[in-house]
Amino acid sequence: MRLVRPLHIALACAIVPMLATAAPEPPKTFPSAQEILDASPKSDWHVLDPNNTLYLELASGRVIIELAPDFAPEHVANIRAFAHAGYWNGLSILRSQDNFVVQWGDPDAGEKTAKPLGAAKAHLPAEFTRSMNGVTFTRLPDADGWAPEAGFVGDFPAALNPREHLAWMTHCYGVIGAGRDTAPDSSNGSELYVVTGQAPRQLDRNITIVGRVVQGMELLSVLPRGTGPLGFYEKPEQRVAIKAIRLAADVPEAERTPIELLRTDSATFTAATEARRNRRDGWYVRPAGHIDLCNVPLPARDPTKATAKPR
Amino acid sequence: MRLVRPLHIALACAIVPMLATAAPEPPKTFPSAQEILDASPKSDWHVLDPNNTLYLELASGRVIIELAPDFAPEHVANIRAFAHAGYWNGLSILRSQDNFVVQWGDPDAGEKTAKPLGAAKAHLPAEFTRSMNGVTFTRLPDADGWAPEAGFVGDFPAALNPREHLAWMTHCYGVIGAGRDTAPDSSNGSELYVVTGQAPRQLDRNITIVGRVVQGMELLSVLPRGTGPLGFYEKPEQRVAIKAIRLAADVPEAERTPIELLRTDSATFTAATEARRNRRDGWYVRPAGHIDLCNVPLPARDPTKATAKPR
Repeated sequence: MRLVRPLHIALACAIVPMLATAAPEPPKTFPSAQEILDASPKSDWHVLDPNNTLYLELASGRVIIELAPDFAPEHVANIRAFAHAGYWNGLSILRSQDNFVVQWGDPDAGEKTAKPLGAAKAHLPAEFTRSMNGVTFTRLPDADGWAPEAGFVGDFPAALNPREHLAWMTHCYGVIGAGRDTAPDSSNGSELYVVTGQAPRQLDRNITIVGRVVQGMELLSVLPRGTGPLGFYEKPEQRVAIKAIRLAADVPEAERTPIELLRTDSATFTAATEARRNRRDGWYVRPAGHIDLCNVPLPARDPTKATAKPR
Repeated sequence: MRLVRPLHIALACAIVPMLATAAPEPPKTFPSAQEILDASPKSDWHVLDPNNTLYLELASGRVIIELAPDFAPEHVANIRAFAHAGYWNGLSILRSQDNFVVQWGDPDAGEKTAKPLGAAKAHLPAEFTRSMNGVTFTRLPDADGWAPEAGFVGDFPAALNPREHLAWMTHCYGVIGAGRDTAPDSSNGSELYVVTGQAPRQLDRNITIVGRVVQGMELLSVLPRGTGPLGFYEKPEQRVAIKAIRLAADVPEAERTPIELLRTDSATFTAATEARRNRRDGWYVRPAGHIDLCNVPLPARDPTKATAKPR
């Protein structure tokens, strides 16, 4: 029995071998996104900053989160304080709503039995948008229905409204935000959610985004859906225990996970995105000629393996 | 401890109570999508046709699938033949790739040990698109990056290209297609996949869509991700057993699941979609003014409960 099935539906990473040919005509093949990544210079990748990296430790493994202090400096500072103090250790994932979000925090938040916030602030300003000043934006040429301009800032999907001179991060798969009550400034970063479904872009500019999962999404996306309202688990024993959430900088180096991300302002990223926008391997009959912001892969890799890989 | 958390992120179905007031100014509230559905006339809903309904029975419960004979008549006829003969009973879910698809079929397909196809055809034409003739299309006014026009045909998200006079179904969450090999006409409907991630619209017009899941997606979306290439399970024991896939028409009436869907050409559907496009409850600071084709909810309900519900 074959491992890869004959009736599979093909992926962008399918390998299209480059033909070794002496013919004068160039071969009618195009490198795949994976081949473009494999051929990329090391300088197109960057290592995650341990001060902006969270490790969410579950019984099933480690989820790696990159924080976004350029968009949510106050929330990220508070999240670092929570992680440093071990605030989430022993708390739980409380909610999994199909095709929407997974959420964790203190089930007693806002009550007298709530876990003390320690050195973290109880109240923060809303950080829904930021000024475009100082933002390096890599614009995606494809139309976006939700914002005047869509693209990337650093390692994050983002959007711009030049008329309002505002930038914000966008709710794509794996993006993490800070749960809030009705008041816009009612989040403090203790309760976080991650997008597990079709991009809920209607949340953009309505809630503070604090980062995104860069590795381990499959540990969160498979969690059983809660049967209570909004996908909350109805019984405490259904919750998923959080062993720890730590800032990578607080973790001994030997226990850190080596990871590097492709720079979104690199030529490699532009070329790999184009290879996904127009699939030219033999499987595709009609290249789409379009890619949605939330369909653009944001490649991550283990640098210790990547550098050892034959080119 | 409250069931619904104070720091929740709000959903469209949050209830905005209508104010009982004698003031001359109308209250500044708008009905939510749920209130619009609750107030809908029975005639805006239709019962699923048992001849176009599949029951995928897993140990965890029943997944209900609506078939789309108007788009893929040959595939749907073959799928009915497979279901009628119990072809999938005892086979397995073979693949779960994070943020992409779950897939099932015969692991030995294409080999000598393959399960016989019985009365079903081994080869079918590609049914990627169809003529616009006879298609009743409810156009979504929102821009779509993937197609000239996006909207709904019957119970399915769909797109049109009037210049080419073509219509096709689109790869939104829960949509089901027929796996194929490199040749466009290499699917026969025995191997099916369902979208579990961000809408992979690049597959539109490249593969035959046969229907969509109308209830029970959460039984498929939580399946552990496969660790082999393309998310295939590496060991046979990791596969998820299919107890049966049956056409509802072949199931005794007492064992069928009552379900009805909101007509996409109804005023209720238009109003509920607008309530999602522009959220006006107190939680939202900025209504999006836009909705993506694959974010539009396609409401289903149990008619025995719906008719008993107080208005």
